[in-house]
Order: sequence, then structure tokens, then C-alpha cells
Amino acid sequence: MKYVFGVDVGGTFIKMGFFDSEGTLIDKWEIPSDKNLSGAQFLSRIAEDVKSRLARENAALSDCMGVGLAVPGPVLPDGSMPRLTNLDWGSLNVREVLSESLPGLRVEAANDANAAALGELWKGAGQGRQSLVMVTLGTGVGGGVVLDGKILTGVTGAGGEIGHIIVNEAETDSCGCGLKGCIEQYAAAPGLIRVTKQRLAESTAPSVLRGRADFSAKDVMDAVKDGDVVADEAFQIMCRMLGKALAGVAVTVNPDLFVIGGGLSKAGSIITDTVSRYYANFAFYAVRETPIVLATLGNDGGICGAARLVCA
Amino acid sequence: MKYVFGVDVGGTFIKMGFFDSEGTLIDKWEIPSDKNLSGAQFLSRIAEDVKSRLARENAALSDCMGVGLAVPGPVLPDGSMPRLTNLDWGSLNVREVLSESLPGLRVEAANDANAAALGELWKGAGQGRQSLVMVTLGTGVGGGVVLDGKILTGVTGAGGEIGHIIVNEAETDSCGCGLKGCIEQYAAAPGLIRVTKQRLAESTAPSVLRGRADFSAKDVMDAVKDGDVVADEAFQIMCRMLGKALAGVAVTVNPDLFVIGGGLSKAGSIITDTVSRYYANFAFYAVRETPIVLATLGNDGGICGAARLVCA
Repeated sequence: MKYVFGVDVGGTFIKMGFFDSEGTLIDKWEIPSDKNLSGAQFLSRIAEDVKSRLARENAALSDCMGVGLAVPGPVLPDGSMPRLTNLDWGSLNVREVLSESLPGLRVEAANDANAAALGELWKGAGQGRQSLVMVTLGTGVGGGVVLDGKILTGVTGAGGEIGHIIVNEAETDSCGCGLKGCIEQYAAAPGLIRVTKQRLAESTAPSVLRGRADFSAKDVMDAVKDGDVVADEAFQIMCRMLGKALAGVAVTVNPDLFVIGGGLSKAGSIITDTVSRYYANFAFYAVRETPIVLATLGNDGGICGAARLVCA
Repeated sequence: MKYVFGVDVGGTFIKMGFFDSEGTLIDKWEIPSDKNLSGAQFLSRIAEDVKSRLARENAALSDCMGVGLAVPGPVLPDGSMPRLTNLDWGSLNVREVLSESLPGLRVEAANDANAAALGELWKGAGQGRQSLVMVTLGTGVGGGVVLDGKILTGVTGAGGEIGHIIVNEAETDSCGCGLKGCIEQYAAAPGLIRVTKQRLAESTAPSVLRGRADFSAKDVMDAVKDGDVVADEAFQIMCRMLGKALAGVAVTVNPDLFVIGGGLSKAGSIITDTVSRYYANFAFYAVRETPIVLATLGNDGGICGAARLVCA
């Protein structure tokens, strides 16, 4: 049995996961994401933590298979990152830079949504399956495609970026990416809030959200569960758009299952149940039975998938 | 250098291709698809042709790497075919049955649209690339996804069935598959004719197609090239729907390129040029530059890809 590290690099902190090579999480901790540090300085801090954690186990570098990183941006097949929107790391090859500080260890990097998908296949909702497509409903809509146990990175690192499938040509608002009608505009937390505000403005139906200057996506989901008609209109739009997008993804990659994760998925089975109902209406017969289930790893999906990158 | 056979099983004839293992086509011929023969009888006829063609080269079975088959229906990862809509072969495992007649030879089968995609990657428009998505515009819209040089079959054999991505929720006509608004309803030959007839009925604009009881998709494309306004309206709808569908596919699998083939693609670069223009409007920035090109193997794509199945 060897050790592996899975590291999830976020905008506010770096999450370190210490695993055995069978995927059991031994320990996890966080390092604050000091924005004044360069990418190389970050990576050297990660290398220090790797060495000191191994030392605490009286383990040598040779007892460790490697370090996998999940990063908030595209990673090309060669390990280079063309750009990170949430961290000012510049353009660097994570794999090369970190390998220098950790001689002999395998270093791999992947986009964080892709890593979470891989984590779910290894130890989460997709355990025992060959393939899955994961959708992460958070501040954006992320996605990851895992086929035959491997992340589909894509030629420009955009594999699984299903948040930017266009589902509504009639949309007049712009997505953060510049397009109009992306799934992210309906199914991310800000998207659900946006559509709810539109529905409130367009109707006079009573709603617990009416008149409130500000509310969260969780407030919307709580209102949906309490039978709020306006909140439910927005939620149905979100689920119809998601169901339609997943039906298109299904006839493209035909995965074993779909996994829904991210902050919004904390609302629970109401999300998978409702998306599944719309999905069935839009899905080609050969993919109509594809299960749509909730992620089970929560925030540990990223470190788990990152660890898997180096021990698959 | 060894030999390989690529066999494309169609509804009206079986096309046999005799290749060397580097993909050079040595010879090709056809066998009529006698509908009275069972699947097993078909396969035994194919086995006879394989043996006699090898004999003409004074070659033994051991000089042949194997036989790949492209079949008009889904093929599961284990080589079994759950159903063929165009041939009454029943449910049989092609790989097992044909292997019995050809001891020692590798036998593989794939869906014909998938095989054509693999053929284009090996010897056609995608030569030298790692991945592509092919769209075949014929009596239906077929598709194939090839990643890292391998066909994405999918868990139920529906990988690459992109003809059934829904692109128009407002559609009132039904697709052959039972859904409403599939890309096939706009971009297959019958779909282009259908939309052209709608446009003729809905306008009074002059058109060379007006008043004709019947016309083909080629007639529509000829009219488009002659500046016919009504035919062009239908063509623009077809290309916009295709561009939108491919943009969604691009953020899912992020291929090196898209290849358009099938009968309708004989209209030439007007198709790829027009689809590319719409695609750019719908595509996420990271995939906006994905090339959309014409297939180059024509009807030989199937036998070529089938051959590649056994010598990759």
C-alpha cells in the first residue's frame, strides 16, 4: 500500500487530501490561497506539506505514488494551464514545476470539475461504473466527462464544459462567457436567482421571496419545497433546461450515469427527480434509462479525483 | 505487412474492402443483401469471400489480421447487436459467430456511422488527428465520436447518435424516433425537403421548386446554389440547427475537428462554410476555432473504418 495526495486548488484556499492508493482518505487540511503568492510559490508550499505529512508517517517520498492537482481552469493534455480565471498563476506547467520539488513522484493535474467527476466514479455515486457525466451546480455550471475511467480533457481542455451548451436561443441576457442562452444562465445559483427575479417581476402571484431585496439560491430551493409557486416556476425552468442539455449529452457520449453535484444539489432528490422527469421527455430511446443521481462526495470530490489521477 | 478486411453491411448490399494493415485499399466489391438470408448465413457468405480473396493472393488466414464489420445499428461494447432496424438479423453476437468460421482471425464490429468516423480519422479528413466528431447527413443524421483513435461506443451503443439532439423545442412534427425537434428533422435529406416544403407553403416568394410535386434534397441544394430564396431559407435553418448542435457537442467532447459526410455533403463547401458561420455564434470561446470540414472518403469510409477496428 502506498500513499497519494489529492490537492484541490481553489480561489480562497487549497484543500489537501492524504489518501492511501485504494482511495481511503487518511487526513485532510486546508492552506489559505494567499493571492500575493505566485503559482511557483504555491506549488512549493504544496510540496512542503507533502513532505512534512509523509514525514509524520515516517514515510519516504518513495512510499508515495504521486500528487494529483485539481485546478480551477482548463488543463491541457500535456499538463499546461493556458489560463486560470480565479487565480493569478500565469501560464505554467503544473506538472513540470511541482515535479522538480518532488523528485520521483508522479504529478498530474486536471480541471477541478473534471477531477470531481473522476472522484465520483472512483469512490462516489459512480463507483463500479465505467463512465459518467457529472454536472456541478454552483456559482457556475461545471461539468466533467469520465469515460473508461479516464477524464475526457479535450483538445483545448474544454471537455465536459457542458455549462455552456446553449439551451435557449431566445435568451436576451448574456452569460459570463459572452454567449446567450447557456445552461449556466438557468442552472447555476446566480442563474436560478436571476430567473426567480424575472418570474417575480412578470407575475403578481404571492411568494415568500417577493419584496426581498436579496435572496440566495438556497432561499429559492427552500421556497420550492414549501410550495411557493413563483420559486417553483424558476425551478421547473432550471430542471427543464438541464434535462434537455443532458439528453443531448447522452446521445453524444452515452454514459453509464449522470451525477449532479455542487452547492445547489444540497437541495437533494427534488433536483434529480425533477431533472429526470424532463430528461425522459427529451431523451432518445436508447439513452432514456440513464440514471441521474446525486453526487455523494460533496466537497471531497475534488481531492478524491485529484488523488485518482496519480494512482489509476 | 498483413491483410485486413473491412466490411460495410448495408440494407441493399454488403460492401467488402480488402486492405493492407497500413490502410491501403487493395480491392473492393459488393455482395447483394439478400433479405431472405439469416444473419448467420450472411456472416458465412462473408467468411467465404474472405477466404477466397486471401487464396487469390496465395495468402493463408494467418496472413490476415482480421475482419472488421460496420453494421447499420447499435453494437454494444461486447460485440452484440441488440437490434438492426434495416436488416432482419435478429439478435446475434457478430464477433462470436464470424470468429467460428474464421479461426484465429480477430473480428470486431461497430455501428456504421461510428466506423465511418474512425475511417475518416485513419485515412480521411482527420488523418493525423487524435479525435473527431463526424456527422453523416443522409436519409437520417448519423454521427460518430472518435477519441484517442477509438470509437466512443457508449453503454447502450448510442455514443455519437447526435442526430437525436433536440435543437427546437417548438417543433410540432415528430421525428422517426418519436421525439420532436431532433437535428435529423432539419439536416437529413428528408428533413431538408420537409422544411423546404414548409417554407414554400408559408411564403409566396418565387422558387424553382414551387409547384413541383416532388423534389430531392439535391434539387434543394442546386436551387440554393442558384440563389433560390426559399430553398436558401430551408438551408439556413438546417445549417443553424447543425451549428447549434455541434456547439453543444464541442463543449462536451472538445474534439480536434468536426467532419461532415453523407449524401447531402456532396453539395460541397457551401455546407461546411455555412455551418461554421452559425457554429461560431453558438460556440463557447474555448471551442470556437474547432474546424468543420468535409469528409474525404465518401462511401469508402465504412469499409476503411471497419478495417481499422482490427488493426489499430
